Amino acid sequence: MDRITSRKNAMIARLRALGADGAFRAETGQFLCDGYKLLDEAIKSGAEITAVLWKEGGASGEADCEKQFLAPPELFDYASPMKNSPGPLFSVRRGACGADDPIRSAIILENVQDPGNVGTVLRTASAFGVDAVILVGDCADCFSPKTVRATMGAIFRQRVMTLSLEQLPAFLHRHGLALYGAALSERASDVRKVDITHSAVAVGSEGHGLSRELLALCDGEIIIPMDARSESLNAAVAASVLMWEMARGN
Amino acid sequence: MDRITSRKNAMIARLRALGADGAFRAETGQFLCDGYKLLDEAIKSGAEITAVLWKEGGASGEADCEKQFLAPPELFDYASPMKNSPGPLFSVRRGACGADDPIRSAIILENVQDPGNVGTVLRTASAFGVDAVILVGDCADCFSPKTVRATMGAIFRQRVMTLSLEQLPAFLHRHGLALYGAALSERASDVRKVDITHSAVAVGSEGHGLSRELLALCDGEIIIPMDARSESLNAAVAASVLMWEMARGN
Repeated sequence: MDRITSRKNAMIARLRALGADGAFRAETGQFLCDGYKLLDEAIKSGAEITAVLWKEGGASGEADCEKQFLAPPELFDYASPMKNSPGPLFSVRRGACGADDPIRSAIILENVQDPGNVGTVLRTASAFGVDAVILVGDCADCFSPKTVRATMGAIFRQRVMTLSLEQLPAFLHRHGLALYGAALSERASDVRKVDITHSAVAVGSEGHGLSRELLALCDGEIIIPMDARSESLNAAVAASVLMWEMARGN
Repeated sequence: MDRITSRKNAMIARLRALGADGAFRAETGQFLCDGYKLLDEAIKSGAEITAVLWKEGGASGEADCEKQFLAPPELFDYASPMKNSPGPLFSVRRGACGADDPIRSAIILENVQDPGNVGTVLRTASAFGVDAVILVGDCADCFSPKTVRATMGAIFRQRVMTLSLEQLPAFLHRHGLALYGAALSERASDVRKVDITHSAVAVGSEGHGLSRELLALCDGEIIIPMDARSESLNAAVAASVLMWEMARGN
């Protein structure tokens, strides 16, 4: 295994850019992951690992990848978006998870900016068998290191896509999905009384809810009933409860 | 309103200690909050606000509190646990939210160390009308600034207590609550098939689940069914889905 010692090394620059630069991730079709647990998940899921950087004195293990390198701690920390990670750091090619499979259920996030929330939604979607996570508007990048970490490996299994509001109607039509919007309005129906098993359900940001434009596309509005003094749920919690209802059956 | 200019000012030292030091919070029975939204929630909930520090050039507003101060940005940032907060920073006396009310439902967290998760559970418990949140073992301090922020104001309304494993049986007995443990075991019953409406439900850490000691206290084990490739849910999501089931009715 090659040992890298210079910050000017091309692999170091590449990993650093994959961690920090969303445009570079989009351009290369790759993203950055950190930690042995995530590496293990990537291997189990058959993800294409394009390079692995191990930290001297950090985690050790095996990866099925030709490009493996070793770096002293200071250089590793320079390449890593995390502080004091035991590593390894590795890059993965974005897969087209189940790209040809039919989509019978989807959760749509609009303007959910917290990467932890977006990652948690991917994790829950994977656990509850929701076929697709759709990001609309100004959401956190689902391939940023913070989001990837919060997915706990679901990023390698869960179908996720970014669509514009303009693209959404054709997508829903193609997959025969009704669209329900989670809204704190009086005309919204109690989620327990609507069959959302095979549908798309949209959740907005905690502060503002869904945009008027997205609500206009909805076939119906649903609400998770709650105490009158509570203004809202955490966005990942709201989406998770709705995905649980989609999976729960009635 | 007095303007503070020195780091040696007693109020600055006190606010700083409330943000950083759990033992000082316990000793004084007070905790630190940040931001106008939270101040508004504190006022609405009738919490006892003991001091308010406003930031020059930051948020402005009103608070029903005799001790109000103003600090230049650098000094404010020194007192605050957050970076670049517009403020205000304020201290609140821990209330005994509903201390005499009966407890007909409770969520128990064991060894949940992430403050965001603990805060989110308080927020969801408040929204779903779960009477008490019980922290057991090595959980994040529910009065730390990060936890308080994640509660989005539920800290002023939600009954929360810390119990040892030894205290738990008497507590459950006193309130007539059956205890169910969330477990990924084969003997666990599908949560949809167990009536957990009036009971206590325990959730463990994501990595290790519930301790053997806590499982030994349980009347039954329940599981949220999920995809075989998913190892677990985020702790706050698991607790939230269980609280939703407690509130949902069947």
